[in-house]
Amino acid sequence: MQTGPQPADFADVRATNLAVVLRHVRNHAPCSRADIAAATGLNKATVSSLVADLIERRLLRETGLAEHRIGRPATMLVLDGQPYAAIGLAVSADQLTAVAVDLAGEQLLSWRRSFPALASSPGKAVSAIAALAGRVAGRVGSQNRQVLGLTVGVPGLVDSDGTVRLAANLGWRDVDLRADLVHALRDPKYDVAVDNDANLSALAEHRYGAFAGSSDLVYLTGEVGIGAGVIVDGRLLRGGRGFSGEIGHVQIDPSGPRCPCGRTGCLEAMAGIPAIIRRVLPDAEADGPITDFAPEVDEVVRLARRGDPATVDSLAAVGRHLGHGVAILTNVINPDVVVLGGNFVPLAPWLLPAAEAELAARAVAPDAGGCRIVASTLGAGTAAVGGAARALATVDAGHLPPPPSPPS
Amino acid sequence: MQTGPQPADFADVRATNLAVVLRHVRNHAPCSRADIAAATGLNKATVSSLVADLIERRLLRETGLAEHRIGRPATMLVLDGQPYAAIGLAVSADQLTAVAVDLAGEQLLSWRRSFPALASSPGKAVSAIAALAGRVAGRVGSQNRQVLGLTVGVPGLVDSDGTVRLAANLGWRDVDLRADLVHALRDPKYDVAVDNDANLSALAEHRYGAFAGSSDLVYLTGEVGIGAGVIVDGRLLRGGRGFSGEIGHVQIDPSGPRCPCGRTGCLEAMAGIPAIIRRVLPDAEADGPITDFAPEVDEVVRLARRGDPATVDSLAAVGRHLGHGVAILTNVINPDVVVLGGNFVPLAPWLLPAAEAELAARAVAPDAGGCRIVASTLGAGTAAVGGAARALATVDAGHLPPPPSPPS
Repeated sequence: MQTGPQPADFADVRATNLAVVLRHVRNHAPCSRADIAAATGLNKATVSSLVADLIERRLLRETGLAEHRIGRPATMLVLDGQPYAAIGLAVSADQLTAVAVDLAGEQLLSWRRSFPALASSPGKAVSAIAALAGRVAGRVGSQNRQVLGLTVGVPGLVDSDGTVRLAANLGWRDVDLRADLVHALRDPKYDVAVDNDANLSALAEHRYGAFAGSSDLVYLTGEVGIGAGVIVDGRLLRGGRGFSGEIGHVQIDPSGPRCPCGRTGCLEAMAGIPAIIRRVLPDAEADGPITDFAPEVDEVVRLARRGDPATVDSLAAVGRHLGHGVAILTNVINPDVVVLGGNFVPLAPWLLPAAEAELAARAVAPDAGGCRIVASTLGAGTAAVGGAARALATVDAGHLPPPPSPPS
Repeated sequence: MQTGPQPADFADVRATNLAVVLRHVRNHAPCSRADIAAATGLNKATVSSLVADLIERRLLRETGLAEHRIGRPATMLVLDGQPYAAIGLAVSADQLTAVAVDLAGEQLLSWRRSFPALASSPGKAVSAIAALAGRVAGRVGSQNRQVLGLTVGVPGLVDSDGTVRLAANLGWRDVDLRADLVHALRDPKYDVAVDNDANLSALAEHRYGAFAGSSDLVYLTGEVGIGAGVIVDGRLLRGGRGFSGEIGHVQIDPSGPRCPCGRTGCLEAMAGIPAIIRRVLPDAEADGPITDFAPEVDEVVRLARRGDPATVDSLAAVGRHLGHGVAILTNVINPDVVVLGGNFVPLAPWLLPAAEAELAARAVAPDAGGCRIVASTLGAGTAAVGGAARALATVDAGHLPPPPSPPS
């Protein structure tokens, strides 16, 4: 015989069809099986089988509500998903942030604890992350929700196995964070994933931000470093080994300052938050390196609000460098919008005009290819929200959770 | 009633399933309807309907061949597609190239005519392109093949309507090439598309090149300009308005030479073929601007082969600039391979070592994120081959041609 069953092909088609039904109900609930069949072109038997599968997985439920129509009344379907939660957790220079959301994207909790990541070993970080994740999972479990997944965002190069190959600003190299967390969490039933924080923030913007649904979107982190999360044609651009988005280490000026990465004139060295603080508040590092940026950024904002000329000029110069970086992204990938996140958000009023002018001058395409630069409106914890969104996106794509055990 | 039929959703599912069946037969022919059902998980009635559709469109045909197995013998299916051809045509500085391929990718013809695009108006170019395309379509038609589509590649920014917004090196701006060609070809029955030449070359590499199937691949044109065609996760990266891939106008050195685009130190101004010729053969432009690069490139190769130190040094310097450009692509999108095309191919032995060293120094990811720089092995006319591949890719994706009229 030529071919046996091929599970991959089978899964593709079935997953596509399950996802089509799930998306249809998300957009059109309440609706009947006949509605779904009519709208999708799937035959009624197929729809019944798919719906049964989704009900068994508690992603859909029957409302019992019947509409008046010709023929017998139809049982209506709506999204369920209440029994599920996804957890996202983000590591930044000075804190851990955790959120949990249900399948509809409703935020169930948002927790934050200070953690000196810059001054801690990877081992200590694993313990702290696992402790926080365990507490969140416990809370979600006490609400009788099944955890769909935990995704941890880290500012660094993360490979597809969840190993942090390099997080220069944290001083991490080849940390097998995913395996360490699985071990520390004692082999939990849910998926544990580790991803680049900029990637997760881009997912959050794509799902919940002011430009949600924009199919070509870039998020720039404004933390210790500058990382890019890139959405292309509605999907995260990861690259061959998952190391995309390192715009922070593209050289902007060969005569620029030395970057901690060892190169010179990197975007990050010229326009990162530490560079801004160093420029505006030259005395800030008098007592040693800064590990908590918020107070210094507040001070920069205060000076800028007062119209302090040196501060305003410095922020305009940094804005030009950011615009240069955005122009490179625009010439190479032509996004619709570049979202500035993190500590760039409060500084945006002084950064954006110069950034936009520089972008317009350096972009080849007319009207900068339609690219706008905006400040994120999602607030702190964007990467954690994106971590949760990552699990939801895999459900939307048809990677469904196994049927939950029957409620006790 | 909540929802009526939604043709888009219907088409999505049906197209997905048609494409699944077509791909299965492409990979496993000859096979029976039962084989397809078993392998894909589609039910037999659905498979029969899909196969009937594909046979009617003459994309599949029955062989009549039956294998011995338990139960009644099955009719076997193979790819048909012989009644179809796709046409690709590329405009470069000094010539037009046209190819036609059948649905299996077999090249049916490859024609070339010299055309001084640099010295011609867009109107003259339209006439020349339409004349060549018409002749190719006539030849293909005389073989009783239906033309699936014509795609024309142009070195410039092409929007989704097929308007060339800017082709600086050709001196074109806002040329509605697609509409002009449709008019000149008298509303042909086949689709006419216009696309960026680097995009089409990337498609050709992705389908037929030495790294075919590599899901993260970049092609760099080595014509008058340097354009990038970017494949990400197996799909062409177009960006919000289709203006991606303009790596040629990313600034490599702020103190570099003036670029014809008006900016300074663009990659193209430092490492484009005219820059190489100007550097190695300073007298080449004594009789006016060069419009045909092949003889000059041959001369550069001859000097390099002889080991002429100034030539070898110049090519190494250009290689470093190319490596710098590739490092930007690597840091931002992390491709597996960057393919140098066009006139870079004969120069590659002298460009690559310096390019690779520069890439390694500037890439953040270990091992340059796995990125290799290689010379194209597809030969001239890559963009034209890609133009034909574009029509085939749309068939693979489920955008099937309408059933042909019955053979006379």
